[in-house]
Amino acid sequence: MRQRFKAWAKDKLVDNPEFVSVDPASMKGKWHAFFGNHNPIHLEVGTGKGQFINGMGKQNPSINYMGMELYDSIIITALDRILENDISNVKLIRADASHLLDYFEPGEIDRVYLNFSDPWPKKKHAKRRLTHESFLARYETILKPNSEIHFKTDNQGLFEYSLESMSKYGMFFNDISLDLHKSDMPDNVMTEYEEKFSEKGSRIYRMEAQFRS
Amino acid sequence: MRQRFKAWAKDKLVDNPEFVSVDPASMKGKWHAFFGNHNPIHLEVGTGKGQFINGMGKQNPSINYMGMELYDSIIITALDRILENDISNVKLIRADASHLLDYFEPGEIDRVYLNFSDPWPKKKHAKRRLTHESFLARYETILKPNSEIHFKTDNQGLFEYSLESMSKYGMFFNDISLDLHKSDMPDNVMTEYEEKFSEKGSRIYRMEAQFRS
Ligand SMILES: C[S@@+](CC[C@H](N)C(=O)[O-])C[C@H]1O[C@@H](n2cnc3c(N)ncnc32)[C@H](O)[C@@H]1O
Ligand SMILES: C[S@@+](CC[C@H](N)C(=O)[O-])C[C@H]1O[C@@H](n2cnc3c(N)ncnc32)[C@H](O)[C@@H]1O
Repeated sequence: MRQRFKAWAKDKLVDNPEFVSVDPASMKGKWHAFFGNHNPIHLEVGTGKGQFINGMGKQNPSINYMGMELYDSIIITALDRILENDISNVKLIRADASHLLDYFEPGEIDRVYLNFSDPWPKKKHAKRRLTHESFLARYETILKPNSEIHFKTDNQGLFEYSLESMSKYGMFFNDISLDLHKSDMPDNVMTEYEEKFSEKGSRIYRMEAQFRS
Repeated sequence: MRQRFKAWAKDKLVDNPEFVSVDPASMKGKWHAFFGNHNPIHLEVGTGKGQFINGMGKQNPSINYMGMELYDSIIITALDRILENDISNVKLIRADASHLLDYFEPGEIDRVYLNFSDPWPKKKHAKRRLTHESFLARYETILKPNSEIHFKTDNQGLFEYSLESMSKYGMFFNDISLDLHKSDMPDNVMTEYEEKFSEKGSRIYRMEAQFRS
């Protein structure tokens, strides 16, 4: 059953090439053509079921949103949302963020979003955290100069680590909130995890981290 | 009564020149002589009643601790603690941190502590916050290269502001804790405000911020 669902999910992704790329290396340098315009491209890494990019896409029609996700079985829900919304500025990539440099030309992306990234709490797994310096170096390469990473999480340890890692990398912070849902944030678009954890009473942490070059 | 207390406090400070300097400009470049050794000097700005530096002084006999405080009526309690403890590595300066450059030679200090600094929550008062860039520039001058500022507060807004201000200045962070009293921190020495606020259940935020030069 699970195997059949997986195969079906994969087929459905392949059948919707105008919304999902399953071979992003072939699109390197051509993403603006994929969207059919020259608007900025904002990339969410680890998009999950795509609630965030769909909400952002509706809120900001002149921005192109791209959701990158590892798993067919998860990204399929993000595709369903796009099809339902009939929205042209939200697209998906089924791929691994470790290989970002294979998918994008330097400067092709305008902003990176990280929402509720896997925390990898054990120190020996720090390299897998999406805010480890090896990932920051990849984001810096594919982003235009002075671009930002917008980051939200409920995980205190990951947020502490990310402030350290990003500042050591030379980034600086704008608009930090250590309790987002008690702050002023009129246009906040919630992710699936954000809804779940804030309902349980967890604090949500948020920051905008900017590259110096 | 209040006037008499004030006059008495001032007299007592002046009567204890081996523990308190009320004319720190005259000591510029001579602080190691004041302590009678060449151990590192750690300066707490806004020391209040001195519980922190007295605790730190007992814990670390080979560090010199210096507490700077604006008000006679407050610093007098810090003096009483030093006299009680009969401790030679803790000293006081009754002065205003705005004039740090008049009191210390470049590189004369090894670390700055800021504990529960006044939050000045209004945006128009941001310049008075002890983590405003104008203060960071003063700390950088009197500190040795690559030194650290250790900062604790219960005030969420001040902590958010300080992360932004320090990272914009080019500093980076070590050992951030967004909930100090639920973290591992075996040698933590509590300040007066820390005791009061943590008893009330407030979160205590802490970080070590390091200069790049
Ligand atoms: C905890 S979920 C959060 C989902 C969503 N952003 C939210 O806030 O609700 C993290 C997602 O990141 C995806 N992910 C983790 N590592 C990834 C990587 N290297 N490349 C792409 N996606 C990744 C996971 O598969 C998972 O769906
Ligand atoms: C909120 S109290 C905290 C006292 C102590 N650090 C603690 O944690 O319990 C802040 C102290 O900083 C002092 N202060 C504020 N601005 C100062 C300045 N520019 N120079 C020296 N002391 C200052 C105030 O007088 C006050 O005693």
